[in-house]
Amino acid sequence: MNNEEFRQYGHDVVDWLAAYLKDIRQYPVLPAMQPGDLADRLPAHAPDFGEPMDAILEDFQRSIVPALTHWNHPRFFAYFAISASEPGILAEMLAAGLNVNGMLWKSCPALTELEQVTLGWLRQWMGLPEEFFGIIYDTASVSTLHAIAAAREMADPETRTRGNSGGLVMYTSEHAHSSVEKAGIMLGIGQDNIRKIPVDQAFRMRVDVLRETIAADQRAGKRPFCIIPTVGTTSTSSIDPVDAIADVAEECGAWLHVDAAYGGVAAVVPELQSILNGASRAHSLVVNPHKWLFTPFDLSAFYTRKPEILRQAFALVPEYLRTAEDPRAVNYMDYGVQLGRRFRALKLWFIMRHYGREGIAELVRAHIGYAQRLAALIREHPDFELSAPTPFSLICFRYRGSDDENRALLEAVNSSGKAFLSHTVLNGKFVLRLAIGNMATQWEDVEETWNLVRQAAKRT
Amino acid sequence: MNNEEFRQYGHDVVDWLAAYLKDIRQYPVLPAMQPGDLADRLPAHAPDFGEPMDAILEDFQRSIVPALTHWNHPRFFAYFAISASEPGILAEMLAAGLNVNGMLWKSCPALTELEQVTLGWLRQWMGLPEEFFGIIYDTASVSTLHAIAAAREMADPETRTRGNSGGLVMYTSEHAHSSVEKAGIMLGIGQDNIRKIPVDQAFRMRVDVLRETIAADQRAGKRPFCIIPTVGTTSTSSIDPVDAIADVAEECGAWLHVDAAYGGVAAVVPELQSILNGASRAHSLVVNPHKWLFTPFDLSAFYTRKPEILRQAFALVPEYLRTAEDPRAVNYMDYGVQLGRRFRALKLWFIMRHYGREGIAELVRAHIGYAQRLAALIREHPDFELSAPTPFSLICFRYRGSDDENRALLEAVNSSGKAFLSHTVLNGKFVLRLAIGNMATQWEDVEETWNLVRQAAKRT
Repeated sequence: MNNEEFRQYGHDVVDWLAAYLKDIRQYPVLPAMQPGDLADRLPAHAPDFGEPMDAILEDFQRSIVPALTHWNHPRFFAYFAISASEPGILAEMLAAGLNVNGMLWKSCPALTELEQVTLGWLRQWMGLPEEFFGIIYDTASVSTLHAIAAAREMADPETRTRGNSGGLVMYTSEHAHSSVEKAGIMLGIGQDNIRKIPVDQAFRMRVDVLRETIAADQRAGKRPFCIIPTVGTTSTSSIDPVDAIADVAEECGAWLHVDAAYGGVAAVVPELQSILNGASRAHSLVVNPHKWLFTPFDLSAFYTRKPEILRQAFALVPEYLRTAEDPRAVNYMDYGVQLGRRFRALKLWFIMRHYGREGIAELVRAHIGYAQRLAALIREHPDFELSAPTPFSLICFRYRGSDDENRALLEAVNSSGKAFLSHTVLNGKFVLRLAIGNMATQWEDVEETWNLVRQAAKRT
Repeated sequence: MNNEEFRQYGHDVVDWLAAYLKDIRQYPVLPAMQPGDLADRLPAHAPDFGEPMDAILEDFQRSIVPALTHWNHPRFFAYFAISASEPGILAEMLAAGLNVNGMLWKSCPALTELEQVTLGWLRQWMGLPEEFFGIIYDTASVSTLHAIAAAREMADPETRTRGNSGGLVMYTSEHAHSSVEKAGIMLGIGQDNIRKIPVDQAFRMRVDVLRETIAADQRAGKRPFCIIPTVGTTSTSSIDPVDAIADVAEECGAWLHVDAAYGGVAAVVPELQSILNGASRAHSLVVNPHKWLFTPFDLSAFYTRKPEILRQAFALVPEYLRTAEDPRAVNYMDYGVQLGRRFRALKLWFIMRHYGREGIAELVRAHIGYAQRLAALIREHPDFELSAPTPFSLICFRYRGSDDENRALLEAVNSSGKAFLSHTVLNGKFVLRLAIGNMATQWEDVEETWNLVRQAAKRT
């Protein structure tokens, strides 16, 4: 493709994206299709000779777009709703063209230093201590994997050379994200050594049970090495009592990792900073700008007060090669399993600057406000009930009927294409989840979705 | 940012990128700066209130661009040279705006099915067997991590629940990529249980030593569970004898993982398909389109003939929930540690279609041709010597002088800003690496860099 063609097609793509974002409410949030529908209509083999870009862009619109679930849709309320903000998209465009790789400081100083600077900024916004070292990973799953690997390194530094020696036990709540368990499997800790502590009525980890469980494990000769509370659990967005859990971690010498992947961003709002109470005492914390900081996927921010332990776990550069290095030239590849690293900090920089703290706070406040308003409507409605508190912008609720009726209701709403909700199971019951987090979402979107839900309920 | 502003700034960004790609030879490949230079000139705090996009884009050009290492530069010859091709950039722009997440089939059918289709196409191009199941991870480090995790699952299925039981040993060559060792650490196997088999004169794993080492480990009660040959090692791009190693893997029942992250793409060239001899017998293989398939970073393609073992290692969905599922609706989150997954297949689809197999083959052939031509010049030059064979497009060579002289030569070339080479150590000697892989690289770029090297040698 010659330079002028690239410029032209680039304009076409931008125009298409602008129209897409403008008209996005016209798309069904969930596509009406069966598994295999797209695969079946695409050729069985790639072409031997190049095809014109016009044909490819046409096929994109004709075949790919109708098979999309529109995550950027303002009525996408499933899982955790996210946004690709416009400044973030612009930065991703630049990053794709630059195609730099930040494994070493030298391999791209701009990437490395902007990562340090933007993560410092975000740390300040969240009220986290200055000694927190920041690094960007792709996803919270990978951030948490590294947290637990560092915890293991602290507990048993010989693991690196000799392998797991056994006896290590980690603790999280029964509402923790599945990535905690996956990390435990990956690291060879094993599911038998992952304790899922029960929760209280507000779905928060029970510190009394945590303490008892740890004591029992210690009596059995096991070694508690990592405790993982969550600020904003996946099912209900509940907030574990991090400060009290930090006491327990101190008592038993375990690494404290705070999973604030979803909820953490709310601490950018000055009056909400208390959601991170106790997090300053953590050894590590993860927060995902790609969740509620309007950052195109993927960008997970990981902080640790023990970067030297993280580094010790993964660096393969012999120590004698390091002395000549400038301590300001961070080689991020030494702090993780991934060697290649995209220029993710660029979009964070664009977004933090374009919106400013107040701009972000206003959006987060609005989402929480919509959620409170909907929660009030549900609370007042005789046929519905709230299933969990609403500390952020996720509402868990259900129709006062059977699980099957709620399932049918969810299916009716989602198959309408007008909104997309997801579900969870709380206290054995099927529960609907409506998560507000897309920056284009207006109260009217929430209200109309609530109308859809009520209409569907009438028909069940 | 309103819709019209996004359209305008989008055009500005595209125009900037087009100009950047057109004029890229005017940029120094490596920036002339000291660690901290960029961080020091950026504000210590993020703004409270939003800033205009004009100011941000201006700062991008004024502060960020001069601190970039230009990976997309045709005289970037360090590490492995890569390219963000124009169709790939266009696809990344679209993916950033769509912001979809392919954890489940349902969470984005287009992402899931296009991943299956494009990886099927690439598998055909590489001559790999039809039973190979494909999945996209971010980097080869993560692909290899999953390969070894699956190997452990095959060898010891109780690891998942009970944790590592010890005694497992893995094998690779002393020239394997560092990600193999990092994965061994992450998985709790331990460096003591990673055997780095010595290489022959062409830097290929010695199968006789591999066999002896495995026998010795078995006599000592250890259990060989994974063997990892490389097609295109990082230091010299050497090709381990995969077919002979596959025999050994079969004999001892170990998982065979082929690291073809760099070299594998060359198999797209029909007359080069023999580089993957034996790879069809592997349990898994990784190849990185973001290396030599002109795909913007990141996209690592992972293939395995044992997807059920990979799934078994990581799926957390209870089996009874699966029976109702359509077998064509692959939930990729069950095959790895990462829950969130970007729409990476889109750029692969754009690139494979836009260039076609012949277009890709032509570029790869040209790179290999330049490398052979430069190798011939080096071979004939009295002051230089080739340090390794050149099976692909990476040339390892050195000035016939001391290590310090070679170091000074490299520093002189790189600090000129006119080209960027890297180095390695072979047989105890400091060696220069010149890797050709950027799609804009012409013979003149290679020739002028060779001139730079010779001039620098004269001054040492």
